[in-house]
Amino acid sequence: MLSAAQLDLADPLAPFRDRFVIDDPDLVYLKGNSLGRLPKAALAQLEDAVRAQWGGRLVRAWNEGWYDAPARIGGKIAPLIGAEPGEVIVSGSTSANLHALLFASLEARPDRNEIVTDDRNFPSDLYVMQGLRGATVRVAGRDGALEELIGPKTGVVSLSHVVFREGFRHDMAAVTSLAQRHGAWSLWDLSHSAGVCPVSMGHAEMAVGCTYKYLNGGPGAPAFLYVREDLQPLLRPPVQGWFGHADPFAFELDYRPAGGMGKFLAGTPPILSMLGIEAGASLCLEAGMERIWEKAVGLTSRFLELASGLSVETPLEPERRGAHVSILHPEAFRLSRALIDRGIICDYREPSVLRFGFSPLYTRYVDVDRAWETLSEILEAGLHLAYPEAKPAVT
Amino acid sequence: MLSAAQLDLADPLAPFRDRFVIDDPDLVYLKGNSLGRLPKAALAQLEDAVRAQWGGRLVRAWNEGWYDAPARIGGKIAPLIGAEPGEVIVSGSTSANLHALLFASLEARPDRNEIVTDDRNFPSDLYVMQGLRGATVRVAGRDGALEELIGPKTGVVSLSHVVFREGFRHDMAAVTSLAQRHGAWSLWDLSHSAGVCPVSMGHAEMAVGCTYKYLNGGPGAPAFLYVREDLQPLLRPPVQGWFGHADPFAFELDYRPAGGMGKFLAGTPPILSMLGIEAGASLCLEAGMERIWEKAVGLTSRFLELASGLSVETPLEPERRGAHVSILHPEAFRLSRALIDRGIICDYREPSVLRFGFSPLYTRYVDVDRAWETLSEILEAGLHLAYPEAKPAVT
Repeated sequence: MLSAAQLDLADPLAPFRDRFVIDDPDLVYLKGNSLGRLPKAALAQLEDAVRAQWGGRLVRAWNEGWYDAPARIGGKIAPLIGAEPGEVIVSGSTSANLHALLFASLEARPDRNEIVTDDRNFPSDLYVMQGLRGATVRVAGRDGALEELIGPKTGVVSLSHVVFREGFRHDMAAVTSLAQRHGAWSLWDLSHSAGVCPVSMGHAEMAVGCTYKYLNGGPGAPAFLYVREDLQPLLRPPVQGWFGHADPFAFELDYRPAGGMGKFLAGTPPILSMLGIEAGASLCLEAGMERIWEKAVGLTSRFLELASGLSVETPLEPERRGAHVSILHPEAFRLSRALIDRGIICDYREPSVLRFGFSPLYTRYVDVDRAWETLSEILEAGLHLAYPEAKPAVT
Repeated sequence: MLSAAQLDLADPLAPFRDRFVIDDPDLVYLKGNSLGRLPKAALAQLEDAVRAQWGGRLVRAWNEGWYDAPARIGGKIAPLIGAEPGEVIVSGSTSANLHALLFASLEARPDRNEIVTDDRNFPSDLYVMQGLRGATVRVAGRDGALEELIGPKTGVVSLSHVVFREGFRHDMAAVTSLAQRHGAWSLWDLSHSAGVCPVSMGHAEMAVGCTYKYLNGGPGAPAFLYVREDLQPLLRPPVQGWFGHADPFAFELDYRPAGGMGKFLAGTPPILSMLGIEAGASLCLEAGMERIWEKAVGLTSRFLELASGLSVETPLEPERRGAHVSILHPEAFRLSRALIDRGIICDYREPSVLRFGFSPLYTRYVDVDRAWETLSEILEAGLHLAYPEAKPAVT
């Protein structure tokens, strides 16, 4: 096994770490799959957006980079997920976008009112589906196997590409083809893969995803929607608002949808949160998705090898996982507290998951080793037993 | 008539101007009804939110002021609109919130599937209504008089409290009572009144409103929703997401709505845009709504008096208007360009409206006089005729 320091020296993406704000170089931040770090360029852009644009240019700034931000930033995300620029727009939250696409899909084909998902999907996605009036939701893993649940009544098969809990990655091409054989559309949640995993839309019909994880867009930054070009004319969003109008500033009394993905906008977008995305997406473009994924495999493989004595939930084959690794341990909560206190920022997920995210643009191989060494020390000395058994309020 | 300088000297709110970032003291900014100015406190808070919270605290910041921001900031807006803190939450856009409340109202009472509005409402509100599947929209001013359109099938009467175009203000208590006599609920869009006009919810059932106008919350900052406490249990939002779950971080497979207004949250909120609101709302609380409205009357009355020779569309009685004044002029577009070039930032609204917003916390009486003097000079010398007759792309 090469040393971590040797691997860092040979890492072509190593210089990207310096493009992020890092106050404490000793902090090992393995939660970039929850909230990515702040790019230095985003800091500069947001300072400018607040001070010079809002403060100085005021309402004139709408014509100087705000109004076209949803399509412009969508156009930067598109190549990262193997889509065309006109197929992606930034708007709302992942949950709102998922709702919009499911609603529109079921309305377009009312004879297919069943949604098929699985019990590994992010719960918010399941909540959205459960809230869709008139839809029947079938949950693979609970109601049967995925291939058994898809049939002539299936409108949409909607899954998380990389699963939030254990990091399992679905075979997008295979599931999409399976759905298509039954005439169903597929809708992928790319939250845990956009900006880190190889994704190739174009075959699949629809996708949503968040921008604040591997795209480093900032806390709660607006999400994106992808709809394959040929499908766009068939879908009518549930919320019609002026930003989705063909001519918003004509102030016509009647709605006329904008062309392409524009109709998926509705109200005025949250500009500061929106502008935070641009730098992170640009960094991914600059680094290149192939190199990013190659390093993600390097980091996760090393950690999986080091942690092989523990109960690892994440698939060992790189093509079946994302960029985070989950370990099952009955003391996961107390272990997470002990790790955080020792400068290893990781995730606890109920009831017994210890989750480590390896965002390639700023995570070093020495960070992988330090995380493992710290976890080993805690386990060997039982240091986690000093922590209370309560669950955290949030995150 | 007292001089503008005398009025500024006697103005108890004059010191608030210094609480805003003002780069060019000679710029007369009369578009605070479109995008309010940047409070100095918001600048400091946003710099901290980006640099120290996102950059330094990273995901830990969720427990340090992010997670409770929608309810906390809603609680600050509540007294500004005469509501209780538990009746207001910040989320989404005005259009998305209007959709959510109309959808839930019609679902709660399916025998009342008619929405009554008027042709003075902001077009985005009309677009939202037109997009509501299964609803019938009746538009006062086009389909008949308001009182004729409200009947036993009316579910919701939804109007803009202060109308975006000419600044007409509806009598909220009277319209709400009229609706209630027919068993209908009322839903007010407070976008052009929150933070400037006296508003007293409590009688009315529902409201939405934007935060980037008189509340000075920043470009596209998230909007708010108000639902009268007794009505909250009856409404089920169209989008169910994890932030509206009773226990989001339990990651349960099934949705259980949060109590109170919490269920109106769905996806992760855009935190940077959200945090921008807090300073502006706090300034309104500090200044007091009575004093703010008193000054709004002072500023608008002075402008209306100066402009009395022109075709003024805004009602002259203070209780029938908001804080902006609209002048009808066939050359409105070219006049707006000529004014902007001379440092008077105002609004053009198709086809012939020249609109001036007088946001009381930073607008001076001398600004009123300068706007009028500049407009007079332009008109007298025909200076606007030097500008092309094109319409602007945006804003």
